[in-house]
Amino acid sequence: MPTALRNGIEGLNQMVKSILATWRATAVALGILCVLVSSVHAQGATDPLPSWNVGPAKLAIIKSVTATTTEGNPNFVPPGNRFAAFDQDGTLWVEQPMYAQLVFALDRVVALAPEHPEWKTTQPFKSVLAGDRAAIANFTMKDLEQIVFATHTGMTTGQFTAIVKDWLAKAHNRRWHRPYTDLVYQPMLEVMQYLRANGYKTYIVTGGGQAFVRTYAEQTYGVPPEQIIGSALETQFTYNAAGEAILMRLPKLLINNDFSGKAEDIYLFIGGPPQAAFGNAAGDREMLEYTQARGKGALMVLVLHDDPTREYAYGPAQGLPATKIGTFPQALYDEAKAKGWNVISMKHDWKRIFPFEQ
Amino acid sequence: MPTALRNGIEGLNQMVKSILATWRATAVALGILCVLVSSVHAQGATDPLPSWNVGPAKLAIIKSVTATTTEGNPNFVPPGNRFAAFDQDGTLWVEQPMYAQLVFALDRVVALAPEHPEWKTTQPFKSVLAGDRAAIANFTMKDLEQIVFATHTGMTTGQFTAIVKDWLAKAHNRRWHRPYTDLVYQPMLEVMQYLRANGYKTYIVTGGGQAFVRTYAEQTYGVPPEQIIGSALETQFTYNAAGEAILMRLPKLLINNDFSGKAEDIYLFIGGPPQAAFGNAAGDREMLEYTQARGKGALMVLVLHDDPTREYAYGPAQGLPATKIGTFPQALYDEAKAKGWNVISMKHDWKRIFPFEQ
Repeated sequence: MPTALRNGIEGLNQMVKSILATWRATAVALGILCVLVSSVHAQGATDPLPSWNVGPAKLAIIKSVTATTTEGNPNFVPPGNRFAAFDQDGTLWVEQPMYAQLVFALDRVVALAPEHPEWKTTQPFKSVLAGDRAAIANFTMKDLEQIVFATHTGMTTGQFTAIVKDWLAKAHNRRWHRPYTDLVYQPMLEVMQYLRANGYKTYIVTGGGQAFVRTYAEQTYGVPPEQIIGSALETQFTYNAAGEAILMRLPKLLINNDFSGKAEDIYLFIGGPPQAAFGNAAGDREMLEYTQARGKGALMVLVLHDDPTREYAYGPAQGLPATKIGTFPQALYDEAKAKGWNVISMKHDWKRIFPFEQ
Repeated sequence: MPTALRNGIEGLNQMVKSILATWRATAVALGILCVLVSSVHAQGATDPLPSWNVGPAKLAIIKSVTATTTEGNPNFVPPGNRFAAFDQDGTLWVEQPMYAQLVFALDRVVALAPEHPEWKTTQPFKSVLAGDRAAIANFTMKDLEQIVFATHTGMTTGQFTAIVKDWLAKAHNRRWHRPYTDLVYQPMLEVMQYLRANGYKTYIVTGGGQAFVRTYAEQTYGVPPEQIIGSALETQFTYNAAGEAILMRLPKLLINNDFSGKAEDIYLFIGGPPQAAFGNAAGDREMLEYTQARGKGALMVLVLHDDPTREYAYGPAQGLPATKIGTFPQALYDEAKAKGWNVISMKHDWKRIFPFEQ
C-alpha cells in the first residue's frame, strides 16, 4: 500500500475515532432516540420532526411526548391535562429587526396621520412620520404606549380585527419580501402539530397583543383564539346605533403578558402550569420556571438565535451580538443549563427554517 | 245512558276540547319537536334531555343544537366555533339563601378567628363571628371585599385550592343536608352534556371566584379549569424557600366578572361571542346581549326560579318575591320576551331538579 494512501487511511481512522469520542457522551441518549424512532417506524409512522437534525433538543421533545402519553410511565399525563405554551416573537416567528406588531403600529400611524395633523409636530408621532429609525429604536415604553393607544384603540373589537387582517394581507417583510405570516419556523410548526397529534392543547403565550395575534394564529399555527394568551387592553361593553352589543377597545392596559406576567396569566387562563413551554428570551424565564414547578417530566425549551446566515444571531448569551429585541441574556443560558432546560441551536438543530424553503 | 254518565262524558269532551285549544298555539312547535325526536329515535339514540318536560324551552335547545350541527343549515357552526356559556349561581346550582362561596368565606372567618383576635371587635368580622345573619344580609360591597380579601388571599394558588376542596368535602347545605356540589340542576347537566356530545365547548361564566369554581367544576359539571371564566384576584409570581416558582394570591381585584364584565371577559378568554348562553339574573343580561350580537341562530336562555316547593321562587319578575341574591327583574323578563330569548320555568319545564332525586 503506498505511504500516501496508508497515511490517508490512518488520518481517516483518527477522524472517525475523534468523531466517536465526541459522540460517546450522547451515545446513550441517541440509543434511546433510535429505539423511539424505530418504534415510530414500526407503527408505520414517519419522523414527526423532519425539519430537525438528530440531537439533544429533538431527543428531549420526542422523549417527553412519548413519556407523557404512555400509560404506566411515571410521567404520564392524562389527555385533558396536556398543555404546551409557546412564546411567539422569536420562538414561532421572526422578531428581528423589529416585532411585526410594532411595524403594524408604525404603519398605522402613517395611515392615520391625515386625521391627526398635530402628529407632524408632536413626538413620538413626528419621528414615525419622518421615518427616523434611530429615534424609533430609542422609543421609551411611554412612547410605545402612546403609539399603541393611538393605533389600537377607539374602535370595536371587530373593527380592529378587520384592520389587522387588511394590514397582514398587504404588508411584506423587507428582508424576505414575504408576508409576515410566512416567516414562521417550520421546526416549531412541526412540534406544535406533533404535540396536538398526541393530545396536547397548544397555547400561544405572547408579550404581543392578544387581539393582534388572534387574527392570524389559527390559520398560521393551528391555534384557535381561545388558546391565545397575550397582552390585552381593556374593552368596554356598549351598544351600536342599532342597539346591538359591541365591545370598544380602550386605551388602558389590562394584561401585561411578559416576564412574571406570563406565569400569572397562564394560571388565569389555564388554571395551572403547562406540561411544556417554549420561549427564546428573558421575558420567557418565569414561564419556564413556572412550567418546571409542575414537577418531574416537565419540558422547558429555549430557542437560541445563532444563525446569522439563514436568520439572525443575537444574545448576548454565548457571545452572540446583544439586542434590545428578544434579548437572551447569559444568565438565562446559565439557568437553562443548571436546571436541565433544553436550548435549541437554530444553526445546528434546525435543518430548515421556513416553510417556504423546500 | 244515565244522565249522570252522559253529563260526565259531556264534561270530559269539553275538558279535552279545552286542553286541545290551549295546546293549539304550540302545536306547530310541538310538531317540529316530534320530527326532531323521531329523528333522534331513528338514529337509535334516546332523549338527550330526559329531565325536561316537552315545551318551548326544550324545543328551542334541541332546535338550536340540531341547526348548528347540521351541515347545509343556514345556522350551521363549524365544530371549533361552538361555544356555550353558563352562569353558575342560580343557573347551574342553588344560590339561595346565600351563594355557596359566601358561606365558604364566612366559615373561613370563623376558622381563622383564633389568629385574628382583633376581629372580635372589628366589623364586618364581628358580625360574622356573632352569627348575626341580619347584619350579614346587609353587608356592603366594601364589607364583602374585606371578608373576601381576609379569606381568599395571602396564600399560594395551590394552598387556596386545598382549602376550598377541604371545605367542600365537609360543608353541608342546611336545607338539603347535602354537600353544595350535590345541589346542581340535573336538567342543566343534561344540556351541558348534550352540547358537548354535539361538539360544543361548555364554559362557566360566573360572577363567583374563578379559583373557587375551578376546584370542583370538572368533577361536578365536566368543565375543565381552562373553561372557567370568573371573577379573579391578581396573583404574584415569586419563589418558595426551595427556589421553586409559586403564585401568591393578592388582595386586588383583577377581573370583576358580572354584568358587562361577563361580555368583556368572554371576549378576553374566547375571542368573541358564544353561540349559546344560559343565565338567570340581572348580571347575565349583557352576556346574553353579546351572545345575540353574534347573529341569527344564537341561543339565549334564562332560568326563572318559580318553584317554591322543589327549590325557590324569586324575581321580582312575574310577581315573584324580590331578592338581593340572583335578582331577576321584570325589565329582564320583558327584554327576553321582546328579543326572542327563552325563559325556563323551573316549575313547568323541569321534571326533576337534582340528580339525587330519582
